[in-house]
Amino acid sequence: MDLSKLDARLDALDADGYLIDADSTDADQYYLSGFDAPDPFLTLYDGSTHLLFVRSLEFGRAKRESRAASVERFTDYGYDDRLEADGRREAAHRTRAAFLDAYDVEAVAVPPRFPLQTADGLRKQGIEVVADAEQTVTAVRASKTDEEIDHVRAAQRANEAAMAAAEDLLGQAEIDGDRLLVDGEVLTSERLKEEIEVTLLRRGCALDETIVACGADAADPHDRGSGPLRPHEPIIIDIFPQDKTTKYHGDMTRTFCVGEPDEQVREWYDLTERAYREALAAVEPGATGADVHDAACDVYEDAGLPTLRDDPGTETGFIHSTGHGVGLDVHELPSVGPDGGELEPGHVITIEPGLYDPAVGGVRIEDLIVVTDDGYENLTDYPVSLVVE
Amino acid sequence: MDLSKLDARLDALDADGYLIDADSTDADQYYLSGFDAPDPFLTLYDGSTHLLFVRSLEFGRAKRESRAASVERFTDYGYDDRLEADGRREAAHRTRAAFLDAYDVEAVAVPPRFPLQTADGLRKQGIEVVADAEQTVTAVRASKTDEEIDHVRAAQRANEAAMAAAEDLLGQAEIDGDRLLVDGEVLTSERLKEEIEVTLLRRGCALDETIVACGADAADPHDRGSGPLRPHEPIIIDIFPQDKTTKYHGDMTRTFCVGEPDEQVREWYDLTERAYREALAAVEPGATGADVHDAACDVYEDAGLPTLRDDPGTETGFIHSTGHGVGLDVHELPSVGPDGGELEPGHVITIEPGLYDPAVGGVRIEDLIVVTDDGYENLTDYPVSLVVE
Repeated sequence: MDLSKLDARLDALDADGYLIDADSTDADQYYLSGFDAPDPFLTLYDGSTHLLFVRSLEFGRAKRESRAASVERFTDYGYDDRLEADGRREAAHRTRAAFLDAYDVEAVAVPPRFPLQTADGLRKQGIEVVADAEQTVTAVRASKTDEEIDHVRAAQRANEAAMAAAEDLLGQAEIDGDRLLVDGEVLTSERLKEEIEVTLLRRGCALDETIVACGADAADPHDRGSGPLRPHEPIIIDIFPQDKTTKYHGDMTRTFCVGEPDEQVREWYDLTERAYREALAAVEPGATGADVHDAACDVYEDAGLPTLRDDPGTETGFIHSTGHGVGLDVHELPSVGPDGGELEPGHVITIEPGLYDPAVGGVRIEDLIVVTDDGYENLTDYPVSLVVE
Repeated sequence: MDLSKLDARLDALDADGYLIDADSTDADQYYLSGFDAPDPFLTLYDGSTHLLFVRSLEFGRAKRESRAASVERFTDYGYDDRLEADGRREAAHRTRAAFLDAYDVEAVAVPPRFPLQTADGLRKQGIEVVADAEQTVTAVRASKTDEEIDHVRAAQRANEAAMAAAEDLLGQAEIDGDRLLVDGEVLTSERLKEEIEVTLLRRGCALDETIVACGADAADPHDRGSGPLRPHEPIIIDIFPQDKTTKYHGDMTRTFCVGEPDEQVREWYDLTERAYREALAAVEPGATGADVHDAACDVYEDAGLPTLRDDPGTETGFIHSTGHGVGLDVHELPSVGPDGGELEPGHVITIEPGLYDPAVGGVRIEDLIVVTDDGYENLTDYPVSLVVE
């Protein structure tokens, strides 16, 4: 874990420390503290790391499991003595300020989404609190160590197994009018998701959501899909599991069709595969996320299809970024979109162009890759093919 | 959804509106907006509800699915025109301010954990932003409608099935020295969790985590447990699934022992069952969460065991609250601990006393109940028994 960028940022902001107030579902908190807890706690980084817990509940485990130099509690900083005179909220603010004071911290930088009430409370105690617009801890997380890349790789292996289970189930389906049947039962989005999720669970992965979307559902990139799947229509399957032990994610999308896609869908698929290959070809250290995004947009716009680059108000066509970073968060830095900065070796990103229109459905192809010294390595080992045999 | 408490709070704070900036994993956001989205968006409540999205991606679905009176985008408030002159961040602040201005909102109340950068940006644009220490939307969520209670009930039914599957697996175990064997394989925490999670998944529930903890692991209420389960020791199983469709949670804990618990464990179990029954007996409208917590603490302290009430620094004994609200969040208001206020009909809460000591292990019993006009209804239908037959 190389925190030199964070040290430099603290210098630039004239801050004595970086402060996080969050539970460990906040990836910055988990990364900086090295501790997994369901309730919010305070992490102070001032060259080394110090944790402050409201209650004793996590204290013992934090001492054993966290990477912190010190683990402390509200009660160690006079919280209980202040309660009667100050009330709970004011006592909490004074306790946090006393903790910072113990480390000679008078000015802190905090993540942009740091809780307002904590910030206002500290400010009232004379602590300077500045929101770090550059999200430096998030930015630091973008560059993965070899160990972190291995974690992502492992999650993507489970992802491939889940995608194969899903495709296998589609392969068993018989076309019955406008329905798909497996063992005589109507094949639904829910059934396919269950297959995917059980496969992932048995491989130690959790999942927020899985997308199995067909027809108009698939035309909305964030619709998870529901109900019967239909033949001859594109079915988008987007799987983004989190390894329960390491907490790192995988991410992959394929679009399948059982039966005969119509000409329009076939065209969209070929175009999206071209956009995906052009975007991949644009990935190298020194190129920006915006360059990669432009490569995908060029393909679509050259074919006369709308993109957000071309028309910021469009609701059809290519209506999202080409990709995003993946790690402890399934969406994290770096951006592979119009604002994407320079790509660096160790950045783990998705490449996932797609086309959407409620009248047609949706098509998307997504791989997960890592930027290397001379280009990229694809962390995804799964065929790109529309029609399920 | 009765928002009269929110209206009153806005009056008291002299605020024109309540503002949330979060994705829908934030339960207040999901509750107020009625919209499920993975990226942060703005919800303004000023008597009716207005949503503001950064990008177009969610626009169509939000118009169809949300409960909002209006759904708007950054681009509708001049974001793109401001970008070049102002830069991204400043343009975003001005765009949010323009949106508030369109509804004549000059002062907003926000949740305590509202993101600092958004608040500071709005303040710079002349908007008054005050953190609502009373978490009014969270407080409103504490009182459930009959429909919400049915959602919790359904999640708890799935929970009971999962607990039965786990107990069944323990029942199949043979004792082999200090190990448990099922079909010749060592029974682990991980194996039991998989059984629980697959059972829940097949019933439409997701889960953040499940606790199956034995021995010293169980002595830490937040340790999820790992490795082989041992005979003659208490095994804590705490399951808190979320129904994927409704997003409401269930919550239940049982402590099991395969083989013969020693005298100490048996004593702790009986004491915890007594604390659980005394706490349940204390539940009625008008009683406070603190009263219910006191009832549990009394049982433990009378038996000479430490509690946080008695000794705020203790790391063994009864080291957490007696319970918490359950709904869209698995931990929400009302509190059933030292700061717990008055209980009202429609409050859904857990009752879950427990004892912990690394030298002994842990014991906890937890039911989920709803406060009614004349007491409570237990939403949990599962036996309370230590020894697995």
